Amino acid sequence: MKIVHACEQTLRIDAKLRNARVDFSEMTATIVAIATDQFRDGRRVAGYAFNSFGRYACGGPMRERFIPRLLAAPPSDLLDPDSGRLDPPRAVAALLRREKAGAHAERSMAVGTLELALWDAAAKLEGRPLYQTLAERYGVAGAGEPRAIPCYAGGGFYKPADDRALLLREIQGYLDAGYRDVKIKAGGLPLAEDLDRIESALSLLQNGSRLALDASCAFGRDEALAYARAIAPYGLRWLEEPCDPADFETYRAVSQAYPGLVAGGENLYSKEEAENFLRYGPAGARLILQPDPPLAYGVGEFHRIVRIAARHGVPAARIMPHGGNLMSLHVAAGLGLGGAESYPGLFGAFGGFGREVRIQEGRASLPASPGIGFEEQPELYRIFTALPLNA
Amino acid sequence: MKIVHACEQTLRIDAKLRNARVDFSEMTATIVAIATDQFRDGRRVAGYAFNSFGRYACGGPMRERFIPRLLAAPPSDLLDPDSGRLDPPRAVAALLRREKAGAHAERSMAVGTLELALWDAAAKLEGRPLYQTLAERYGVAGAGEPRAIPCYAGGGFYKPADDRALLLREIQGYLDAGYRDVKIKAGGLPLAEDLDRIESALSLLQNGSRLALDASCAFGRDEALAYARAIAPYGLRWLEEPCDPADFETYRAVSQAYPGLVAGGENLYSKEEAENFLRYGPAGARLILQPDPPLAYGVGEFHRIVRIAARHGVPAARIMPHGGNLMSLHVAAGLGLGGAESYPGLFGAFGGFGREVRIQEGRASLPASPGIGFEEQPELYRIFTALPLNA
Repeated sequence: MKIVHACEQTLRIDAKLRNARVDFSEMTATIVAIATDQFRDGRRVAGYAFNSFGRYACGGPMRERFIPRLLAAPPSDLLDPDSGRLDPPRAVAALLRREKAGAHAERSMAVGTLELALWDAAAKLEGRPLYQTLAERYGVAGAGEPRAIPCYAGGGFYKPADDRALLLREIQGYLDAGYRDVKIKAGGLPLAEDLDRIESALSLLQNGSRLALDASCAFGRDEALAYARAIAPYGLRWLEEPCDPADFETYRAVSQAYPGLVAGGENLYSKEEAENFLRYGPAGARLILQPDPPLAYGVGEFHRIVRIAARHGVPAARIMPHGGNLMSLHVAAGLGLGGAESYPGLFGAFGGFGREVRIQEGRASLPASPGIGFEEQPELYRIFTALPLNA
Repeated sequence: MKIVHACEQTLRIDAKLRNARVDFSEMTATIVAIATDQFRDGRRVAGYAFNSFGRYACGGPMRERFIPRLLAAPPSDLLDPDSGRLDPPRAVAALLRREKAGAHAERSMAVGTLELALWDAAAKLEGRPLYQTLAERYGVAGAGEPRAIPCYAGGGFYKPADDRALLLREIQGYLDAGYRDVKIKAGGLPLAEDLDRIESALSLLQNGSRLALDASCAFGRDEALAYARAIAPYGLRWLEEPCDPADFETYRAVSQAYPGLVAGGENLYSKEEAENFLRYGPAGARLILQPDPPLAYGVGEFHRIVRIAARHGVPAARIMPHGGNLMSLHVAAGLGLGGAESYPGLFGAFGGFGREVRIQEGRASLPASPGIGFEEQPELYRIFTALPLNA
């Protein structure tokens, strides 16, 4: 098994969206493709991935360091010595030689996106969907079974005009599509207006549907505590990212004052950052943890974070990977986590799970295609296959 | 005052060096040049900078986000509204619009390097060396005075062959060149051999010369404590980076157990990371703090870190910027800090301070040229001026 080519490209994500802190008008993503020398069903086995949502493209370090290192890696850096199978976390360790400690975000997205593409290829080589490969490699009992897993719809961004009407139409669309739990943005309006917006959303969510809020790191300590106090009576699913991801003291204070769950983790880029967040930040008993696999060195590091979280009192059932895409769906299923996020209709070709995944009663069915299954997400797959992989 | 052009380039730093964790055989740097529409002495005022040492080039985010944003910025994003002068930290705030919280290292080097180039231009527009501009802008009494500031030689990397003989020759060279304090790498050999290497170095350092050690994040907790215990009798200048930069518990334990000073900070990339390091990590009373200006959003963020450090019991006299280059020398002088580092003879054209700076009795004189003064570092200046700035 050899890797014969790898390439990447920066693409604009066309998203007229705004959360409490930023708009996404300049947002980009990096897509990667990795070609192996293996064939299955007459086609060359290739792996594809992209660097999730919400962080800009990371092609610089890929082009300048990590793709050249990957292509130069000897088989002993890529393959499990016992099974001879492609071993993506082993490849990551090789990519990180000659890297100084710290500064994870400078490289974790480039390395993590390559790792996911390697997992796509690894599962295709085994002829099964990625979640089954992950469940076996990490020994998660039952996680390789075909099933449907909990999945909520993320959205509710602030719109420049007609925000309330569009929000209600959006949520109704999620419910009609089979979702039950919905997450909307929070903290982007004066408190009273935001509460009114929340109450509008709640008016649509009955019969076991729950509302979660994402404050997108909007608040300082006092604001965060005041906001948590104001929303406490609603009994929401969770309050996500009330403050800066490094403001551990505020996270802890909110998790102590707020009677519900506090969520966070999409801005943690390594096991070291996750360890400190869990050690100094929110109480583990009150936390929903949400790292994003391709942003944070990939599945291998995600699995390390799952084990660290367990030591801090966060069980797998309260870990839900960020990034509403097929990569996070496979990680949620294969590692036996609490569920997945989805961004139906957002982020253009990058949003959604493709035509294999059905949403029903708040659960997402799992893909059956080998690998991640981008092949069954036609608009995105066309973008991947336009990469000059056989150049 | 307008910025009419900006460009960057990735260059290899030819360095056959090894510390306790990594070698530098693939090391690169990013250089930038920014052209204004202003002229002084018949020449167009341009600003130059590079992204310090030890972190790879950061051209990706510069090309894809920050240079386009800088060139598109209206004057109100670049100029102080009262004085009309170029205001680099104001430009940084504009560059960071549309950036999510966290993930600082992904952009802090690109933004910080551009900020230093803007400071170079700002000081040239005022016709004075950068440290004088900084002393005035930040109101640091006496820091604008021409003088010599404490400066130590950093080096002592592990060599593939003849390590001991080369180390002694290197240290003797520093002493002959006018340095007194010297820092060498540590933690890259078994303890007994490392101690023997330290004793060799100490045999050359008499008459007030002091030795500092840089362990380059080599150790876990137990090793770090054992190492600190073993070197305690030598009474060294400081022990730098005994562990991972995010391993706050080990930092704190070492700073409590070791009777001397503990140093760290070159792997902190924002005020948020510095705040947590100071809050949870080493005791402020025992710390030498060493952030690197272009790696961590530039001088504006460095000044914020200086103020945060003061709240944690670290006075300016115990802050010494990482990065033995003219940029850090100006920051050390202009903000009235404890001193500067120097890497004489290392890192090719990027090492050293140029022909204006004299080293005498362990102090470095300050440059008199307007701006940072790369013009008086001819080999490096040729590299800057080869950029297609007027294309």
